[in-house]
Amino acid sequence: MAVISHVSPLAPKEFPGLPEIEGVSFATVQAGVKYQDRTDLMLAQLMPGTSVAGVYTRSATRSSAVLDCQEKTGGDNKEGAAIVVNSGNANAFTGSGGAESVRQITNAVAEQLGVPERRVFTASTGVIGELLPHDKIVSALPKLARALSPANMAGAAEAIMTTDTFAKGSATQVVIGGKAVSIAGIAKGSGMIAPDMATMLVYIFTDAKVEQGELQTLLSELTVPTFNSITVDSDTSTSDTLLLCATGASGVNVGAGNAVFKEGLRKIMLDLAHQVVKDGEGATKFVEVTVTGAATPEDARTHALSIANSPLVKTAIAGEDPNWGRVVMAVGKSGAAADRDSLSIWFGDVLLAKEGWVSPDYDEADAAAHMKGDHICIRADIGLGNSQSTVWTCDLTHGYIEINADYRS
Amino acid sequence: MAVISHVSPLAPKEFPGLPEIEGVSFATVQAGVKYQDRTDLMLAQLMPGTSVAGVYTRSATRSSAVLDCQEKTGGDNKEGAAIVVNSGNANAFTGSGGAESVRQITNAVAEQLGVPERRVFTASTGVIGELLPHDKIVSALPKLARALSPANMAGAAEAIMTTDTFAKGSATQVVIGGKAVSIAGIAKGSGMIAPDMATMLVYIFTDAKVEQGELQTLLSELTVPTFNSITVDSDTSTSDTLLLCATGASGVNVGAGNAVFKEGLRKIMLDLAHQVVKDGEGATKFVEVTVTGAATPEDARTHALSIANSPLVKTAIAGEDPNWGRVVMAVGKSGAAADRDSLSIWFGDVLLAKEGWVSPDYDEADAAAHMKGDHICIRADIGLGNSQSTVWTCDLTHGYIEINADYRS
Repeated sequence: MAVISHVSPLAPKEFPGLPEIEGVSFATVQAGVKYQDRTDLMLAQLMPGTSVAGVYTRSATRSSAVLDCQEKTGGDNKEGAAIVVNSGNANAFTGSGGAESVRQITNAVAEQLGVPERRVFTASTGVIGELLPHDKIVSALPKLARALSPANMAGAAEAIMTTDTFAKGSATQVVIGGKAVSIAGIAKGSGMIAPDMATMLVYIFTDAKVEQGELQTLLSELTVPTFNSITVDSDTSTSDTLLLCATGASGVNVGAGNAVFKEGLRKIMLDLAHQVVKDGEGATKFVEVTVTGAATPEDARTHALSIANSPLVKTAIAGEDPNWGRVVMAVGKSGAAADRDSLSIWFGDVLLAKEGWVSPDYDEADAAAHMKGDHICIRADIGLGNSQSTVWTCDLTHGYIEINADYRS
Repeated sequence: MAVISHVSPLAPKEFPGLPEIEGVSFATVQAGVKYQDRTDLMLAQLMPGTSVAGVYTRSATRSSAVLDCQEKTGGDNKEGAAIVVNSGNANAFTGSGGAESVRQITNAVAEQLGVPERRVFTASTGVIGELLPHDKIVSALPKLARALSPANMAGAAEAIMTTDTFAKGSATQVVIGGKAVSIAGIAKGSGMIAPDMATMLVYIFTDAKVEQGELQTLLSELTVPTFNSITVDSDTSTSDTLLLCATGASGVNVGAGNAVFKEGLRKIMLDLAHQVVKDGEGATKFVEVTVTGAATPEDARTHALSIANSPLVKTAIAGEDPNWGRVVMAVGKSGAAADRDSLSIWFGDVLLAKEGWVSPDYDEADAAAHMKGDHICIRADIGLGNSQSTVWTCDLTHGYIEINADYRS
């Protein structure tokens, strides 16, 4: 495992204050799954009536825990529920032993907390290909259960870290019908799976009362412009899991169409997604790529992801080079509709290229100044329509190579 | 421009001897398009009756030269033809000025050599976004025309280089109906467009007599398992051009179905394609990725390209780490059909993983030994069918970041 000796330069200045969400309590423990001297296991207990919605990796080689969660998502929510997450071992690509570990853990958690096994959601993150020592997790459960407290969400954010260089949390409050509703979440993630330790896990909690199906609709819709619009290296974990839990404890009923709640939730999801990018392996620049003027929304997204995933664009940003030619290249290769002579490109507010050629007013010093910042905005207008899309990524640096190549596992 | 101070460690020991191909003559000159003190312009003259087939970049932002060549490919071949290529400036993303440069050059070449303008094929490679100083090319033509010689194909290979660290050539001879037929080609390419200087250009010549349509069929078919099965960084140039010219001077008639000719041509195309990968920016390992047991040929290719383009797989190879987990990840994310528990993975002859878990006989020392070589073979058997595909790539190293980030253009 690579030694991460410093916090990402893009990390937020401090971990935010996370409110207690009525109906959820947390506990963490040092179970010794792999790491020593740090918490590596977190348990969340959810009150009866809590709706749980989920979005998972689309990998065809996803882990047993993901398959198990997918089966369980969407069931009735009359009884209590639990989430248990360990770091250090991903229990991925562990053959039939992987499913057995999930069964052992979910069974033990169900018994410990008196909730049905079909309402116990697990996730594991860390090395892959090694059997999960689930006994260590099972034997830590009594201690965990005793420690459950609504105040410990920040501790949970730490227990799920692997190669993350900082813990990730975000919270907000919205007012609906004169009553306050809280939304708070935690996340982990830095590269897509590398160095065999990453993955994206996100857990968001609210005391709003949202019917199960409506909650899933909301989560699925908001995942597209948030967590599914970030990329570190175009690689995809076998374990990515995002759960949204609505306890209903506030008594405030919220439907999928509630704009205030939706906007609050979107903000939290986007903030956590941005934090994952800002902890991207080796990242020194946070990069926002916006494509406008595309023929269709799908084309806009295809172009934006092509720019954000291009190694040549990402290395140019690392080198603080306003290299618009590489953006042209990325648009050209994406497969979506484009016309060379209708294309315009901005870095920050600086128009570099328009109508297929360098802009007559372009002064490279202006663009170079923008590139020196740590928040880079690239905009490409395709000139063929009205659709747009924004995605976020980071630069590709020696740090990425160091973390992923300069060690032997 | 980054200074390339050394030849790729994967370069062939020496440039091969290239035979004269009757009906083709070459000339090169120092036109001073951008570089000083080196040849940067090559001219090839083709005898009347020469069939010319072409394959081009699929980029939606392709250059004026590519658009012009595409229009001209497939016309009748009664009259003579010419190819003119400059390095130093790609004449890409140069607005309407780009097409004007192509017109000026093709017109001047046609006049100089007495061939129809519709039979003059151009290409340009180098910086993009800067107008091509076509006057320098036009004024060099008389000198070029005087220097034309069948013996100068090797010189042409040098004149088309940009950031290439070695000139690329390949030749073979096949015997058809008791008569010798020669096939010889040259290529340039190192990254896909970076550092604003790369691109893949390939020119192959034969004295076989092949009807225009048959030649195109052959070239298109053989491009898939050769030049379209290599990737350095998944980025695509706006100028990629591959021309195959059959002069017919040997008098040997060859159809698209001639197995001997086809195999000879395939060998030359594959050799040149491999040389492009071996000159990949920063490359220290040549990597062959073979996928077997896929449900369909398309799935096999999708999986193979997903593995070959994965930054995590490529950095693991750079680090000599037999990291089969990243191969699992790349198969899982590709979008093609896969079943985690049917997957087997080899590095060289070493079986690392089978049926969804590490192989019981696996000894990491064996795989680590394979990773120390400079020709790495990865095989993934999907276990779902009988289709297979092979692609070639190189590792992702600090050298790639240095060339593409550690300079300001």
